[in-house]
Amino acid sequence: VDEFEIIRRYFTPATYSDSVVIGVGDDGAVLRPTPGMELVAVADTMVAGVHYPDVLAAADVGYRAVAVNLSDIAAMGAIPRWMTLALTLSAEQPAWLADFARGITQAAAAFGLELVGGDMTRGEQTVVTVQITGEVLPGQALTRAGAHPGEGIYVSGTPGDAAMGLRILQSGSKPDSGGAELVQRFARPTARIALGRALAAHASAAIDLSDGLFSDVEKLLHASGAAGCLALESLPISAPLLHAVPREEAERLVLSGGDDYELCFTAADTEFLAAGEVAGVPVTRIGEVREGRGLHCERHGQLCEFRDDGYRHFQ
Amino acid sequence: VDEFEIIRRYFTPATYSDSVVIGVGDDGAVLRPTPGMELVAVADTMVAGVHYPDVLAAADVGYRAVAVNLSDIAAMGAIPRWMTLALTLSAEQPAWLADFARGITQAAAAFGLELVGGDMTRGEQTVVTVQITGEVLPGQALTRAGAHPGEGIYVSGTPGDAAMGLRILQSGSKPDSGGAELVQRFARPTARIALGRALAAHASAAIDLSDGLFSDVEKLLHASGAAGCLALESLPISAPLLHAVPREEAERLVLSGGDDYELCFTAADTEFLAAGEVAGVPVTRIGEVREGRGLHCERHGQLCEFRDDGYRHFQ
Repeated sequence: VDEFEIIRRYFTPATYSDSVVIGVGDDGAVLRPTPGMELVAVADTMVAGVHYPDVLAAADVGYRAVAVNLSDIAAMGAIPRWMTLALTLSAEQPAWLADFARGITQAAAAFGLELVGGDMTRGEQTVVTVQITGEVLPGQALTRAGAHPGEGIYVSGTPGDAAMGLRILQSGSKPDSGGAELVQRFARPTARIALGRALAAHASAAIDLSDGLFSDVEKLLHASGAAGCLALESLPISAPLLHAVPREEAERLVLSGGDDYELCFTAADTEFLAAGEVAGVPVTRIGEVREGRGLHCERHGQLCEFRDDGYRHFQ
Repeated sequence: VDEFEIIRRYFTPATYSDSVVIGVGDDGAVLRPTPGMELVAVADTMVAGVHYPDVLAAADVGYRAVAVNLSDIAAMGAIPRWMTLALTLSAEQPAWLADFARGITQAAAAFGLELVGGDMTRGEQTVVTVQITGEVLPGQALTRAGAHPGEGIYVSGTPGDAAMGLRILQSGSKPDSGGAELVQRFARPTARIALGRALAAHASAAIDLSDGLFSDVEKLLHASGAAGCLALESLPISAPLLHAVPREEAERLVLSGGDDYELCFTAADTEFLAAGEVAGVPVTRIGEVREGRGLHCERHGQLCEFRDDGYRHFQ
């Protein structure tokens, strides 16, 4: 089985939409963009043993590689359209590849994303790079750089779950039903595409949570030239997470666990947001944009020490 | 020095064209496509020790990673526009990174390509994935699937040089001036962008040479549903290659050496092509499209045995 046969068998969609003039199989794909739209381009890599443990199921590796990129598309308020996949594998593993391709296909199908090309290579370690091109109305892209003092800081879902899920996965122990839910949050993050699109009309800035809530809010504020504070008592913490660890540890995971792929955004506080749900996704007000520089934490209005240990490469 | 600082320092262009609304630094890049054009998407990975030897200079690794992708854009007859870069490195290597970034930047600048985003990760081995989006007039993309019996098979430049260059590089011996030229053909392949664009009006099918001339012509003919023959006496062989090895070995390198990144195309034989040069690039008629299936070689009209050992992953 050679590279071309593998790509044909596992990764070529049965049908393409009208936007794909030429898909997998030529030197490049030919795509027909929607007239009048801007493009949004994102690319993210997952390395085995670095970004996910080797015990993660092949289908979850595939699903997750797509989902983390969709999360960036969501954070820009864009609509995902086309994807390329660059896969480096250490050996021929037909069963692994079939499962991996199934995960890729499931994530793509769930969001109307089409695989149009890529490359398959051999290396010492599994490395998966997904690149997605999306579309957004001109001037409607959400960036990190629009937060204004006085606005609220909001987050979707319940950060911290994925980090705890990873811990359970790495422990090798069989999780209870709450634990399985946490593992699922790591293995199959939900890309907040619909939320991102709905926020285009309401949010002043947005970022997706990959490195940890505290660190990612810092980045958003830095890009916006503003300061902010997080109110620890208002952090959304899931029941399974509170069941798994003491509250203090849960808070630490929420603030710097990482791998959440939720959206964090800033917006003027409106009734629309006070409803606590946008596009069917729970959103919680967790802090406030202020004048100045930097991010700090408060508990019931009192300054709180917090040492971030969010994830960074090459530190 | 963290990931963000590295990306900012080495990979953020000083200025962007008007087509880049948002470049490196947000969750995604926002791009303004040219109205009425179709998009062409390509992605290719280079793994250290697999696709290039570890002795290859960092700047050449960067240049080559861009050039092999530009070659796919050229084979589609498209204009390169925007690039994302996914870089996996085994350790922090500031000097290597600075040189690598210089190579990336040189290749991009030479072809009007803009780096708009990407990802940097840690792994056991250096893995470089470049994704390029180009543009082409609707219906003008060159594919592999348009060759007709009776047309000529043409190739640009002198295939085989790069494979010999790689051999010299791996030998570790100091090359003479001809040898240095061959090494350069491996280290810094010339993407045939102008040729690809000029061929849009003349060629019926095209492919870029990465795995080896014989194997890549086979792919083109297979996609076109046609057969073909290569006339061994007409293969273009460079003076440095003929100086380095006996003619028989040179022919073998031309046919199955790989890493050429020249264009091979089929076209009706016209005076335009008989001139032997298109867009300033030498082109040579090396064979003919025929009815049927498969590719064979002839020498002065006599059938010639040829066992292809072109490069494939996962065989």
